[in-house]
Parts: sequence; structure tokens; C-alpha cells
Amino acid sequence: MSDIKFNTDMADERVDEYKVINNMSDIDGIDIKEEKFEEFKVTEVNVTNENGASAIDKQIGKYITFEMENVKYINNREQVINKLKDYLLQLIDSKTSSIMVVGLGNMYVTPDALGSKVVKGIDVTRHILKLTHGILSEETREVSAICPGVMGNTGIQTSEIISSVSKIVNPEYIIVIDSLMSKSIKRVGASIQISNTGITPGSGITGINSKIDKDSTNARVISLGVPMVVDIATITNDALSKIENSTDEKNERYQKIAATLDTENYIVTPKDIDELIEITSDIISQSINEII
Amino acid sequence: MSDIKFNTDMADERVDEYKVINNMSDIDGIDIKEEKFEEFKVTEVNVTNENGASAIDKQIGKYITFEMENVKYINNREQVINKLKDYLLQLIDSKTSSIMVVGLGNMYVTPDALGSKVVKGIDVTRHILKLTHGILSEETREVSAICPGVMGNTGIQTSEIISSVSKIVNPEYIIVIDSLMSKSIKRVGASIQISNTGITPGSGITGINSKIDKDSTNARVISLGVPMVVDIATITNDALSKIENSTDEKNERYQKIAATLDTENYIVTPKDIDELIEITSDIISQSINEII
Amino acid sequence: MSDIKFNTDMADERVDEYKVINNMSDIDGIDIKEEKFEEFKVTEVNVTNENGASAIDKQIGKYITFEMENVKYINNREQVINKLKDYLLQLIDSKTSSIMVVGLGNMYVTPDALGSKVVKGIDVTRHILKLTHGILSEETREVSAICPGVMGNTGIQTSEIISSVSKIVNPEYIIVIDSLMSKSIKRVGASIQISNTGITPGSGITGINSKIDKDSTNARVISLGVPMVVDIATITNDALSKIENSTDEKNERYQKIAATLDTENYIVTPKDIDELIEITSDIISQSINEII
Amino acid sequence: MSDIKFNTDMADERVDEYKVINNMSDIDGIDIKEEKFEEFKVTEVNVTNENGASAIDKQIGKYITFEMENVKYINNREQVINKLKDYLLQLIDSKTSSIMVVGLGNMYVTPDALGSKVVKGIDVTRHILKLTHGILSEETREVSAICPGVMGNTGIQTSEIISSVSKIVNPEYIIVIDSLMSKSIKRVGASIQISNTGITPGSGITGINSKIDKDSTNARVISLGVPMVVDIATITNDALSKIENSTDEKNERYQKIAATLDTENYIVTPKDIDELIEITSDIISQSINEII
Repeated sequence: MSDIKFNTDMADERVDEYKVINNMSDIDGIDIKEEKFEEFKVTEVNVTNENGASAIDKQIGKYITFEMENVKYINNREQVINKLKDYLLQLIDSKTSSIMVVGLGNMYVTPDALGSKVVKGIDVTRHILKLTHGILSEETREVSAICPGVMGNTGIQTSEIISSVSKIVNPEYIIVIDSLMSKSIKRVGASIQISNTGITPGSGITGINSKIDKDSTNARVISLGVPMVVDIATITNDALSKIENSTDEKNERYQKIAATLDTENYIVTPKDIDELIEITSDIISQSINEII
Repeated sequence: MSDIKFNTDMADERVDEYKVINNMSDIDGIDIKEEKFEEFKVTEVNVTNENGASAIDKQIGKYITFEMENVKYINNREQVINKLKDYLLQLIDSKTSSIMVVGLGNMYVTPDALGSKVVKGIDVTRHILKLTHGILSEETREVSAICPGVMGNTGIQTSEIISSVSKIVNPEYIIVIDSLMSKSIKRVGASIQISNTGITPGSGITGINSKIDKDSTNARVISLGVPMVVDIATITNDALSKIENSTDEKNERYQKIAATLDTENYIVTPKDIDELIEITSDIISQSINEII
Repeated sequence: MSDIKFNTDMADERVDEYKVINNMSDIDGIDIKEEKFEEFKVTEVNVTNENGASAIDKQIGKYITFEMENVKYINNREQVINKLKDYLLQLIDSKTSSIMVVGLGNMYVTPDALGSKVVKGIDVTRHILKLTHGILSEETREVSAICPGVMGNTGIQTSEIISSVSKIVNPEYIIVIDSLMSKSIKRVGASIQISNTGITPGSGITGINSKIDKDSTNARVISLGVPMVVDIATITNDALSKIENSTDEKNERYQKIAATLDTENYIVTPKDIDELIEITSDIISQSINEII
Repeated sequence: MSDIKFNTDMADERVDEYKVINNMSDIDGIDIKEEKFEEFKVTEVNVTNENGASAIDKQIGKYITFEMENVKYINNREQVINKLKDYLLQLIDSKTSSIMVVGLGNMYVTPDALGSKVVKGIDVTRHILKLTHGILSEETREVSAICPGVMGNTGIQTSEIISSVSKIVNPEYIIVIDSLMSKSIKRVGASIQISNTGITPGSGITGINSKIDKDSTNARVISLGVPMVVDIATITNDALSKIENSTDEKNERYQKIAATLDTENYIVTPKDIDELIEITSDIISQSINEII
């Protein structure tokens, strides 16, 4: 595992941080590609071996990040949706593989409500395909969707709920939606990360839980998230750097600050989080609906 | 099964209807007790044999109905909560039996949101008992809670979700909360029915699903519901009786009217349903919290 | 005023009803135009004189109705939004006239929440234009938006709130959004009516209130609504016609039925009202945002 | 005005901070009383002259703070409600004075939704008293309630909406409910402050606006708030003090940190903010309903 305690769920931010701290320009086992569009940028981080995985404390796999410049005033939302759809189709091997969409998070706390908002927008087909023959075309993909809630409200590990429901639904793919943490304030509500690795809910806001992956669900897991919060310790440390001009020991001090702060219990989020979550959840559910 | 197609989920209303149609004052296999309080009345319907069960198309068991005179201006809400708690304790055999509360219905449609509102108010303990020893007293009852959603939004049979989750949680009791249908407009939002029999979601608003009972969950099932809708056909038929003075063929005509109406797809509910659901969901979650 | 007690807020339905009852093919003072598109139809009812106004109990003015065939599975939502935008621009005389959007209805009751959902989606500009010069282009239209709530929750006449706020905002146009009533079940959540006449909240679900028009607000009022409920008496009467084959006295009987039913206090709405309201509120707020 | 830039809306916290910074045990013009109850404590800060007002940058008047030890597991919620009612009655001179409750804040962002949640729980009477004589007792207090929304969503200054609506409603008292900011994490969701002075929305989360007071509304204004957020700069500074053991220049450094942080745009709030807001809004609306 990496020596760094990362304060972000975004693979590309972790790569940047690792390079700065270790004064490297490349990491063995990590390939990066960037593609620019008019209003957004796509960064593809490929973690290809254990060295890369260990460096950024992420599993071997693909991490694609969409970064929108001005998400609230984007003109061509369709282009983002289409590109996101293309990446989803790259990760799903067939036009007919069944999918279960899982919306993580606490729907009653605005910045943690991404998952449930996306699920609300999904056009499910499974019950129609099972119960009423002939209504939908035979090539319609089987799609189901659940919101398991958070452990603080259910008393049950979220991963256990997902694993037990996936046993009866038997989807080939699970697309897990979650609110993430970024270290950059300007990326909150403005980035989307897709990856073909599992997820451990609670990296973001949700709380401690065990892993959702191929082993626990018997399905291939695609994770799709938007940073909705930033880490308090990052903000603290950045503020300090600005007033003290002492950047050398920044990482060390970060660890100290993080240790004194009860960061696990707090959320730091922009005031316009309600608008950001509406826009990004709409983009995600539309792009998933496009592949049905 | 009864010859009557009942337009109500309330056992006491079914008993009344059966008696009127069959011109009987008693039904073999059905005992009734009433208790009056200042602001509410409790009716206990005991279905004791197959004849009774078949007459009202309900399983053998107990059906207790609370009926409040003026639910929006009730003075002593505590008395209702306490009495409801007493009945819950009668149906649950031990102080330590574990409970899973299941909120049925579609939280995004006001009259169908009772289940999710009750679940939101439940103090769950299971995760605290499992993960952190010593915080809660050893006698604390294990309580968990889920909202499985509705098939139209999940693509999955609600009963399947409940049965798969109950396999990992293993509760001794499941308390299922649902919006019900009454044939009486004045009982909407003003009555609470508790029973120790299972439930088939979809009697009320939720949609067609299979049974939630001991067989499907391995737990004893207690059903708790509030009528939040009335049947369109009842209203139609009642209106007609008033303008035509022809009550003899009322039941026969009801069947005809019901057949012409697409009643499965519609909800008839009072305009102040938002207030009614706040009050009754609060009463129910508080009474459940009292037994933890 | 018309002799008919209309059970619909839709001008085109009233025209049809008037013609059937009076056995006429044309009404003096009412012109009708229809335009068909792939997935929807637009009907324009022009009420040109007092005779027409009295016949359908609507003010002199334009009533444009969009009717979508299959609103939940519409492919080209953009076309509806664009056409709706064109009609809005026909009713608003200048590119720079200021607008206040008013979302009527009770946001806590699903079928009555259209107004507040549309307002949530509006990009307001007034505060930015007033407070921070240079951020928005000088040609940006001034847009503000309020949700006055319903009298049952505020204790205040909705029209009074709107008239007092419009005195400080001074918009040239007010666009009022409301849930309407239709007599046709298949139009619920599937039609949009725009008109350049005022509105009296409470025709739909909202409750009795006085008029919102040029006199009460000093602004020109555009009304935009979607039927979200159907009248119980219509359903009752239609059901009856089917079982009794006696259509001649249908209108007379309707009045009798309506008189026996406490229709003012009830809502009849489809079970999938949550989906219908999401789609139509999105179409409306997007079309309003297009003209900013 | 005070030299200190206070990072809290709570009068008692400001008094403490002023005393520490100026090394004083008493402030001329500020009297303090404390009363302890089993599960909560009430602190009354009386600002009696301009010196006191200037010291803590608050108007002359009374500031009463309820502080609950363990708000999520409080046993005797009734006692808090009753005591809060008593204080409200102290500030309102007559049993019949009319009241308008104003819920400030953005209902779509959880920690800012206190005002709208309280308003939802208020039993309004004004429309019943005006429209239907004889239903309510003649001594019923006239109560109305509005949620003006936030400027970012309406485009209109909140104080302007309130002042224009109060001109038509003419209440003798306005009770303004708002989410506040505290400098202490443990007070978030656990304290209630009532005062008989006006309020400037935006101290908490709401955004910059002008004053709501006797001058702008022609009514006496009572403010009632619960801290739902903490200041990022406070957390940063506290964290720093812990790692650097340098408390002397703490206040000076706070100003520097606050200057570097874009604190206006962020919210720091506990993860269980949804539960905290349910409990406190319920306590407040019940205590207001007790005086009707």
C-alpha cells in the first residue's frame, strides 16, 4: 500500500500527488492519456501492474475522469452524455449484458444523494422483460436498480445488501454510483470518474463498509462517481501554505492536521451543491439510459 | 376464497361488508372486540378458522384497527403511541427478539410514502450492537430497517428483495409498513391496522408482487398500515346510490363499475395527504422506537 | 358564463364538450388550428370575442395545447422544448422583457408539485444583473422566480403574495406554472397548455384563491400548466355510461354525480405521477431557460 | 462595531470570545444568566447598552440559548418544547398578537433547510379566521407562514420578499427561523438561539441580504435559529493550535486563515445533519404551535 494517505478518491489526483511527493515524472505501471473537448477534458489513468496500484492505492484497472470547466453553464450537455456513454460501452462487453444500477449514499443529505438521484432517473426494464412478453424489443438490455441506503439508517452493511440482492437478480454488470471526495474545490460537482474496479463505500461520505466487487457480487463492477465533498484537512493545509510560504513539509503537516481533525464526521461542500447534484445526476442517468 | 371482491384492505370493513351482503349478524370464525378511548377507538378482529378467513379473504390471525376521530387535531398523541406500542408488544413474544422494519411503497408519490417515512424515523441499533460493543445496553433490541422500493422503479419483485436481505440479517420479526386502501373516505390517514399475518404488497398502491410471510422470509411478519387511498369504484358506486336510491343491486353494480374502470392505475387521495402522512408516520415510528 | 360546469381546465377539451352538448360544429368567437409533429400535436384555440369566451368560460385570448403521445418514451424531447420555446416567444413581445416565473401548488403533494419543480429548474438572473455588473451579457433577460406556497400552508391568499412581490420586482411578464385538471385520463402528465390570459389558482388542485392577472400584478400573465389530475365525477360518469348505454342524459347526470361527491377534497391521479411530473417539469423549465 | 470578526452567530459564544481576547471577566452592557435542566441548559445574554452591543457586534436585546447535551437521545423532548414556549411567550406581549413565521434558507440543501422544515410543521390559522367564521375559537391567534427561498434561486432579496408580504399580512410579530453558524462543532444541531432583535439573513448559510427588522417589516421580529454549520477557518485554526502549541497569536492567525479561505462558498456540517435537523425543527415547530 502507498505511504501516502490520500485525501481524494480521484485516481488522476492521486497520480499527481504521488509524482509531486516523490519528485517523479512517470510511475511504472501507470499510463495516462488525455483528450480535450470544447467544454470538458477526459483523463484516462490505466493502472497496469501492482507497482502502479500500490503507488496510488487503487486496484489494477481503468480510471476515466471527465472534468467540466463550467458545469452550471455548460452549453452542450449532450456531448458529455454521449462521451460518457461511449466509455460505459467500452467497459461493458456486450449489447445484451444485464445491468443492476446501485445508488449508494444517504438520500436525505444533499451532497450524499447522488446515487439515489441517478437511480431515480434510470429506465428499468427487468420487470417488464420478465413479466410481460412482447412489450419491449427482444434486444432490450435487462436493467434493474436499487438504493440500499446507508448503514447508519439501515443497521446493515451496504455491501451485504448489494451482495444478497445481486444473488437473486444475477446481473452481469453492477454499476455503482457514489459521491466521492476530491482534494480540489473546483472539481466538486464538476468531475465524473468511471472505473472498471470495485468500490468500497465510505471512501466518500457513506461510512465504513466492506468491498463491492466481483467476489462479493458475482458481477463485474463498474464504479461511477462525482466528487461532492472536499477534505477539511486539505483545505486547512492549503490555507496554511498560503500564509506561511512553507510548502516543503506540506505533506507531513497534512498528516498531522488530518490526525487532529475529526474529519470522518464532517462534510465540506459548496453552497450550490443542490444545483451541482441535479446536473451531474442527470448527465449520469441519461448516459446509462442511452445504453439500454 | 370469498365471493366478494373487496375494495378495502381493512379487516373490520370487510367483516361489515360481508355481513351486509349476506345479511348476517355473526360470522363463524370471526370474533370482534371494541375498546373506546377519548380520541380514538380500537377494533380487534380475530380470524380463528378457515371459514372466517375465507369469508373476508384474509389469513387466520389478528387484525387490530385504530381509528382516530380527528387525526389532524388530536390532543393526546402520546396515548395513541402508547396503545399502539402495547399491541406491538402483544404480537412480539420477547423483549429481545430482533426486528427488521420494512418500509414498502414509492417514496416519490406522497400517498405511497408512508413506509419510507416510518423507516426514516426508526432508531436502528443493529450496526451499533455488531460493531461497537459497550455503547448500547446489552438488553437493547436489535433493530434494522430497509426500504426496498417499488418494482416499477427497481425492476425487482419487492418480496424477493426482502427475502434475500432477511437471509443475511436473520431477524426474528419483520414489521412491514405499507399504505393501504379503505372503502371509507373518512378513514384515510386516520386509521392504523396492525396484524400478525403476512402481507402481499400491492393490495394498496404498490403494485403486484408475491407474498411476504414466514415462508418467504423465515421471520414472523407483522403488518402495519394506514389507508392512504380510497377505491375509485367505491366512490363511483356510492355516488350512484345517492342519486338513484337503488341500494339492492349495489354490490353487483360495484363489480360492473370496477370492471370498467382502470382502477389499478389510479390513486384517489385527499388533498391534505401530506399532513396526514406526516402525522401517522410519526405515530408509527415513535411506537416502534418505544419497544427498542 | 357558460351553462356547463366544466370538469377540465383545458380549453380544447371545453370546446369539444361545448360542441357535443350543443350539437354544433363551430362556435362563433372560437378559432382552432392544429399542427402535427412526429411525437406530439399542437392545438391552438383562439377565443376572439365574448361569445366564445362565455361558451367555454375562459377569457378572450390564446390557448395552445401540446399533446404528447407517449411522454414516458418520447425520443425527441428537444423538439418539444424548442416548439414550446417558440410559442413562449410569440407571447412575449421583446427579447429583453423581464420575467418572473411563479410556481403554484403544494410541493409536498406529488401531483401538485409541478410549479415548484419547474421553478427549481429555472436559471434566475435578476440578482446577478442587479448586484454584479459585467458578469452576464447586457442582453441577458432579467428572470426571477418564486414559489408562493398554498393557502392551506401559508394562511395567505396566493394571489396576494404574488401581487405584493410583483410590486417590488416589477416584471413585464409573469409566467405562472400550475397543475391542471383534465377530463381525459390519457392526457394527465402528457399535455401542456400555454395561454396569454391570467389564471385563478385553484382550478386544479391548489384551492380557492382570487385571480392572478394584469390588474392584480401590473404584469402581463402567461399561464403554463400540465393536467396532473382528473375529475372524480368524470370518471364516475364515464364508468356509468359504459355499463348503462345511456349517453343522452350524460351531462345532466354528471352534474348530479358531481353534486354528491366531495370532489373539492380529493385528488385522482395516475400511479406513475412521479415520473410524469419529472418529465414535464423538465420540459417546461428547459423551454423557459431557452428564452433567457 | 467590534474589532473582532466573529465566526459564530451565537451571542454567548461571542461573549466568551470577547472576554478571552480582551482578558476580561465582565463586559459593561452585557448581563448573563444560566439555568440548568436535566438534559439541557439555558443561557440568557442581555445586551443592555451600546457598549455591550458593539463588543459582540449584536443589537441591544435578549439572546437566549438552549444547549442540549445529547440531542439525538434526549428523553424528555416535551420539557425542551415547553421551556422554549415559555421564552417565546415572554417575548410576545399578548395572547392574541398575530404572528407570521418566516422560514429562511435553501430547502434543497440539507443543513440550510431548517426554516422550511419548521414552516411545514406550523399550524396556520389566518385563512381559516378570515374565510370561515365560527370554526376556530375567537381567541385563536392569527398565524401565517412563508418560505421566501434564497436569492440564488429567486433572484430577489429575501428581505424584500418578507417586507412586501408583511405589508399585506400585517402581523404584529414575525418569527424568523434560520440555520446559524457556531464556532463549536458539538453545538451544531444541538443548540437553539432565540432573540428579540432582527436578523440579517446570510449570517449563516443563506447569502448576503439586507436586514429583517421592525423598520423593514413594521412588525416586531423574533429570531429563532439552530447552528447547522461550523466555520472552516475555525476548524483550520483549532487544528493548527493543536499541532503547534502556539495559542497567543491565535486570533490574529484566524483572520489570516479566514482571508485565504473562500469560506463564503462552503458549508461544513456533520454527516448526521439530516437527523439533527429533523429533531430540532420538530422541537421548534411544536413550541410555536403551543402558543397558537
